[in-house]
Order: sequence, then C-alpha cells, then structure tokens
Amino acid sequence: MLKIFIANGSISLASLILLEEVGAQYEAMLIDFSRDEQRQNAYLEINPKGRVPSLVTEEGVLTETCAILVYIAQRFGPEYLASMGDPFLFGRIQEFNSYLASTVHVAHAHRLRGTRWVSDIASLEAMQEKVPEVMTQAVTLVEDEWLQGPWVMGETYTICDPYLFTISRWLEDDGVDTGKLPRILEHRRCMMARTATQCALSQMN
Amino acid sequence: MLKIFIANGSISLASLILLEEVGAQYEAMLIDFSRDEQRQNAYLEINPKGRVPSLVTEEGVLTETCAILVYIAQRFGPEYLASMGDPFLFGRIQEFNSYLASTVHVAHAHRLRGTRWVSDIASLEAMQEKVPEVMTQAVTLVEDEWLQGPWVMGETYTICDPYLFTISRWLEDDGVDTGKLPRILEHRRCMMARTATQCALSQMN
Repeated sequence: MLKIFIANGSISLASLILLEEVGAQYEAMLIDFSRDEQRQNAYLEINPKGRVPSLVTEEGVLTETCAILVYIAQRFGPEYLASMGDPFLFGRIQEFNSYLASTVHVAHAHRLRGTRWVSDIASLEAMQEKVPEVMTQAVTLVEDEWLQGPWVMGETYTICDPYLFTISRWLEDDGVDTGKLPRILEHRRCMMARTATQCALSQMN
Repeated sequence: MLKIFIANGSISLASLILLEEVGAQYEAMLIDFSRDEQRQNAYLEINPKGRVPSLVTEEGVLTETCAILVYIAQRFGPEYLASMGDPFLFGRIQEFNSYLASTVHVAHAHRLRGTRWVSDIASLEAMQEKVPEVMTQAVTLVEDEWLQGPWVMGETYTICDPYLFTISRWLEDDGVDTGKLPRILEHRRCMMARTATQCALSQMN
C-alpha cells in the first residue's frame, strides 16, 4: 500500500486530495514541522531533502508535487486527470503545475522559509515585506491567463486543481487581496464542495 | 515548424539541446536580456511571464522547462528519453527535473534576479552572499544521491541530462567549488562530447 508523508499547512495537501479523488489505498503519515521532524534522520532516510510530500511506492520513494501528481493520475486515475495521451494538453497541464512549483510556491516560501536564501533578520524582513506584491503578481497571472473555470483547464477537473487550491488557501496570509481574484475564489469554493477535498482536509489542519 | 525563444546564459539551453538530440525541425529566436526584450510587448504576447524558454507549437505556446522537455521527448524522441510508459521511472525523471526547477534554479536566481523577492540593495547583497552555500548544498544532493553516471539515470541519456548540464555550467560563477563534485564534472564532460550539445551551444553565448 502507498504511504504518503504530509505536514499541516503544506503543499502535501495537493497530493492527498488527488489520492482521495482517484480512490487509491494509502496510509497518511503526519510529519510535525513544529517539532522539526522533517530534519530528523528517520525522515531524511525517506527524503534527504527534508520536505513533504514524499510518496512511498512499492518501487521506491517519489518526491516533488509535480511528479507525484502525474504519478497518481497515471497509475490510478482516469486519463482526463492529466491527458497524457495528448502531448500538447499534457504539456499545458505540466506547464501550469511547474509554474506553481517554481514561481508561485517559491514566492510564498519567502514569507516563512526565507532562511533558505538569507541569514540576517533585516533581509528576512525585507523578503517578507515584498511577499504580498510578489504573490499578487504571480496569482494574478493565474486569474487572468490560466484559470478557465470552473476548473483550471475548463470543464475538466485535472491535476492542476488540487495544486492551485492548496496554494490559494495561503493567499490571505500572504497578504494578497483575494477580493480582486473572483475566479480563484470561485475555484476554491468548487474545490471545497468536493468530497475528496473534505476527506483530505480532515486529515490535516 | 516549431519556434523556440531562447536567451544567452539562460535555462533555455536545456530545451535547445533536446531539440537537437531528437533532430526536430525548429527555428531559434534569440531574446536579448541586456536590452530587456523579454519585457517588451512583442514577447509578452508570446509569454506573459517574460521568461525563456517559450516553445511555439502548431497548437499554441508552451513554457516552463519541465513541461517543454517532456513535450519534445514525447513528440519526437525515443521512449527512453522520458520513459513515460513506466509511471515510476517517469516519476523519478520528473522528480529530478522538478527539483532542478524549483530548488536549484531558484537558488541560482538569487544571485542575478534577486529583485524578484527583495527591493533594497543590502538584502540583495545578503542574498548573493548566501548563493555559494545554498547552491553547494543543492547540487551536492545531486552529486551524492541522484547522479548515477554517466547519465543522471544511469546508462540511459534522458531529459534530465540537458537540464542538469545547463545548470552545472553556472556553478563556478555561483561560487560553488566544483572540485568537490567529480561526478557532476564528469557529466559535464560527457555532455560536451555530444554533437547535439555542441550544435545548441553554437547558437548561444
């Protein structure tokens, strides 16, 4: 059986939602960041990066949300979750998720995980100060250019949706005025109405 | 015919190398970052993010290196370039590339593109100062845990290789002591020996 390592408030929610969507059998293991469990040897043996999610499969461990979402979709899901048979459509889905991973999630991380890139307090604060502006710019592109509605790719729910939903839950704390992002708010509402989302949320704070 | 927008010294080299590897017909369009061409309307209409690479296909534009590499492999390449028929192996390939995109490339970007995350000079300098440490840590994980040799995934050249090669060319400028990374140096040498790499390099500085 699959095992997934998750942490409250983290991006691992996206993978957990998808596991619920496809009805996969799995065991969820909660890592407590407040106790620094992600940096203890027991966990570093699973994922030397000390991050979540990690998906333990019968063949080995997979990390990185972009990779895990595609793996779950390919292995358990209906084709339309990732449309891997259509190179361009799959490319668009991958492009969206890669943007979330390498630009949007990274912008967010400068608020709480700034010590990855600077060490002094003044610079950490300078980073945090700019997060509302950077996050607003990053998600406004999603609002204006990407999110077709009701789902990211239009009428079809895909692996882009749990990923966007997970990040969109951070926006108010990141200082983004979500009142100006009606499509993202409507997407959040649609996601909250799904049983899979509720099941995943009930396993984390 | 495909059209790819590239810029000197940028991550777009990875996609260009792969186009050469698979023998795809394409036209390369050089964007001059020193003249800020990536932020001019003509280019923003192609890619509103103002970044490279952008791959213009018959069906529309694709951005983000992780997505473009898979698209090129799926459309033109032999199966082993991405092993998409094997969910776990494809997952490992995606995991590696996603780590390069969202952790390693991001660590590098704090040296030259720090204004994405802070505005004041002192914080920019503090970021730049930490780049050697952060990049060393990020690529040491590649050296120790990932790079099997001669290629990232072992005996088979995959879409991980042009991506790692492109980033590994930045390491000395990022202040990384590559003398301690013999496997990455050997990988760079093997990549340089390929005709496709040389053809791609001849199109950029």
